[in-house]
Amino acid sequence: MSPRQIEVSEPRQVGITELVLRDAHQSLMATRMAMEDMIDACADIDAAGYWSVECWGGATYDACIRFLNEDPWQRLRTFRELLPNSRLQMLLRGQNLLGYRHYNDEVVDRFVDKSAENGMDVFRVFDAMNDPRNLEHAMAAVKKAGKHAQGTICYTISPVHTTEGYVKLAGQLLDMGADSIAFKDMAALLKPQPAYDIVKGIKDTYGSDVQINVHCHSTTGVTQVSLMKAIEAGADVVDTAVSSMSLGPGHNPTESVVEMLEGTGYTTGLDLDRVLKIRDHFKKIRPKYADFESKTLVDTNIFKSQIPGGMLSNMESQLRAQGAEARIDEVMNMVPVCRKDAGYPPLVTPSSQIVGTQAVFNVLMGPYKVMTGEFADMMLGYYGASPAERNPEIIKQAAAQAKKDPIDVRPADLLEPEWDKLVSEASALQGFDGTEEDVLTYALFPGVASTFFENRSKGPKSVAKSEAQLKAEAEGKASTALNGPITYSVTVNGASHTVAVEPA
Amino acid sequence: MSPRQIEVSEPRQVGITELVLRDAHQSLMATRMAMEDMIDACADIDAAGYWSVECWGGATYDACIRFLNEDPWQRLRTFRELLPNSRLQMLLRGQNLLGYRHYNDEVVDRFVDKSAENGMDVFRVFDAMNDPRNLEHAMAAVKKAGKHAQGTICYTISPVHTTEGYVKLAGQLLDMGADSIAFKDMAALLKPQPAYDIVKGIKDTYGSDVQINVHCHSTTGVTQVSLMKAIEAGADVVDTAVSSMSLGPGHNPTESVVEMLEGTGYTTGLDLDRVLKIRDHFKKIRPKYADFESKTLVDTNIFKSQIPGGMLSNMESQLRAQGAEARIDEVMNMVPVCRKDAGYPPLVTPSSQIVGTQAVFNVLMGPYKVMTGEFADMMLGYYGASPAERNPEIIKQAAAQAKKDPIDVRPADLLEPEWDKLVSEASALQGFDGTEEDVLTYALFPGVASTFFENRSKGPKSVAKSEAQLKAEAEGKASTALNGPITYSVTVNGASHTVAVEPA
Repeated sequence: MSPRQIEVSEPRQVGITELVLRDAHQSLMATRMAMEDMIDACADIDAAGYWSVECWGGATYDACIRFLNEDPWQRLRTFRELLPNSRLQMLLRGQNLLGYRHYNDEVVDRFVDKSAENGMDVFRVFDAMNDPRNLEHAMAAVKKAGKHAQGTICYTISPVHTTEGYVKLAGQLLDMGADSIAFKDMAALLKPQPAYDIVKGIKDTYGSDVQINVHCHSTTGVTQVSLMKAIEAGADVVDTAVSSMSLGPGHNPTESVVEMLEGTGYTTGLDLDRVLKIRDHFKKIRPKYADFESKTLVDTNIFKSQIPGGMLSNMESQLRAQGAEARIDEVMNMVPVCRKDAGYPPLVTPSSQIVGTQAVFNVLMGPYKVMTGEFADMMLGYYGASPAERNPEIIKQAAAQAKKDPIDVRPADLLEPEWDKLVSEASALQGFDGTEEDVLTYALFPGVASTFFENRSKGPKSVAKSEAQLKAEAEGKASTALNGPITYSVTVNGASHTVAVEPA
Repeated sequence: MSPRQIEVSEPRQVGITELVLRDAHQSLMATRMAMEDMIDACADIDAAGYWSVECWGGATYDACIRFLNEDPWQRLRTFRELLPNSRLQMLLRGQNLLGYRHYNDEVVDRFVDKSAENGMDVFRVFDAMNDPRNLEHAMAAVKKAGKHAQGTICYTISPVHTTEGYVKLAGQLLDMGADSIAFKDMAALLKPQPAYDIVKGIKDTYGSDVQINVHCHSTTGVTQVSLMKAIEAGADVVDTAVSSMSLGPGHNPTESVVEMLEGTGYTTGLDLDRVLKIRDHFKKIRPKYADFESKTLVDTNIFKSQIPGGMLSNMESQLRAQGAEARIDEVMNMVPVCRKDAGYPPLVTPSSQIVGTQAVFNVLMGPYKVMTGEFADMMLGYYGASPAERNPEIIKQAAAQAKKDPIDVRPADLLEPEWDKLVSEASALQGFDGTEEDVLTYALFPGVASTFFENRSKGPKSVAKSEAQLKAEAEGKASTALNGPITYSVTVNGASHTVAVEPA
């Protein structure tokens, strides 16, 4: 470790972003938490003294309409009402907004405006390729709406990713007016030393008043130490989740981060009594979603394989579908090849799926004999610029197979205006409520939106287990409890009968 | 944090003590792991490059004879055989050995000699009161046997516990010939700043060549950071458990500690491929013991209440037995009073039970109206010296109630020779095999030993779930599944029938 730690006489205040209302349940329980399970914690969250409360964006919008029959805009307005003293924070995928394609700039403007209008304060804007051009328009829209634009860097490891490169990228985001820089370590790859070096590098280069937020998952078990080193290097805000909704694929526990700073030159200033109430609330909630949880507590495999857990299971199921499970080692060796050919994109949704699927194709059918449309698009620049040069030979093959030319402009520059078309298509749907918010829902998830509009009036539904189910399970009855009629073969005094049994 | 970090040009090697074979399963699954579930991991453990392998002592001896019908000495010999290249390490409760009373010095000598003879290398010797006199004889015995005597300090927090005090205590242990100093943080109370300060203090005061080992549990979620800061301050060895047997009431994950040091001035030198094989082995084993696991992943309560989790549940069940559950808050306020009166002992077995039970008595019957024999003994010095002065008024009451005088000598100085008596009592037991090891087993756990000797020839039994049970549970059948025909006596309208039922 560098000995150049900051000496302080008064403890320096380190802000905390609480993740429990968004990324914590997205990471731990597939974004399934119903609003009704969050409401009772809001008063304590609002009073605990967080720098911000992440509560919207990411996969929550999709999950709301797909699984919970809940209007995501209503969720945002409810949070605004229940958290009047908090900065609300959301995660925004740059030009993709919360969807899975690039949108025309006007759609981006309208989405950001409506989010701000409904109560959003801090927009954490990122791009899976780390192409600043994919962030630029969304950042400008946030600034124009008078809100906090947080320029975000996805952390990854590759031969072309260096401390200097990340520091330079931070500079580009600051040049486009970022109010703060977020460092987003979605795969828990950020080790203590690079955490220290990068934060220090940004502060040294652009000034100590540049606000740096650090977001780490806890999957590999190293990142709480990374948060400590980032704080020592000058990080201003770190992300945590209350302990009862922490660890595993989630995040480091809020209380532990508060406690670890005691006696150091840093303090969070959080009201720990409030935090413990929040903990107690979610301690009761979490078991209701146990079916959505993974069993992995800590896994350092990714440091060796460079392949995130979700990506590995995807590839395995693709191989299984082809009866080729035995070839997983070949595929794992192919992933670095495909990633290098594609210019070392971070492996995060959607790039992880795109690279992983191509690796499977390469092993099953020979290198690039068949290219997926998405991999071809990535090779041709339709997801944006890659961190390093892409393999020119594979670009040629991609162009031939996809019958498209490579581009080097910002992908959204090629998009036609689409707002009017989206309005007229949305308007034709049963249950459409006439608002711009509904048009945006349609724009983001056209298929799911039409079903949601139709069913919206039935109100939110929960996919959690009920108290009664939990109680039955605790008593060991589990799923074998007698619910419906069960048919037995019963032999009475030597004679056999078929008997159906159900609760009276 | 102090900026006085050690600068190194070559990475400094930090040793790792692997806990999976002892403290990990003691902390996670009530010491229930059977030898058969450890054997297959030993070749990899032996080759991974650990500084030492903790595999014996603590509660394992008791658990072997009480629950597993396994001879603890045979377990030690098996480890010696399977881990020929490793330093075997044990935890020894000073003058208590592995039992719950003070033993005469001759018994201590014989126990240490036999442990060394059967293969033990590193003796981690501690005392729950941190009274060096309770360590002294065991340490001398270890030195005499030519083995590594690790003088151990239990970490706790109180108004009288200071960095300077811990540094001084380390000096006392070094004066009695300690080959290394272990810092034992059994309640996960050790925060990063004191971890740094204490290790630095010991190194600065007694020289950088004093070996310091740091043992932390992970319960509060702060101690991996503490290990990092301890290493920065010069700690030589830290304790970890392989990730598949880590976290919660256990320890920080071995792989995560290896990975967190990458790029810093420190390295463990462990063979990570071996460690991952060890992980894979125990990943399959751990679910077999799920019934013994607590559900708590991280809990910072102890920082506020000063009451370890196990102590709290003890007090709650004592109150419940008296129909006085509602008075738990009064008891929790009484604990600090009793602890102060007793001179601020660390709260660890057995002092946590002794202090907690007295607090319950005080609340139910009035302050010190009734004193437990154990609390009176503690007040009168029969557990050794306390970290601070004890309350003279309560000492008087203890003397009156227990009809004993307070002592200030080493408690074992008052013990009569007892070896010959132990030999003759053990010899009278059915199944006694005539060895000194068996006499020691009888000395430590007289009641359990007699049952064990009688049943020993039946061989070890496992309390783990079988593969078949795990499979059935995974398929949701759990213990309520109807597998074979079950015969009922059924009375319908007054007539009795014999009915056999099985799935149709």
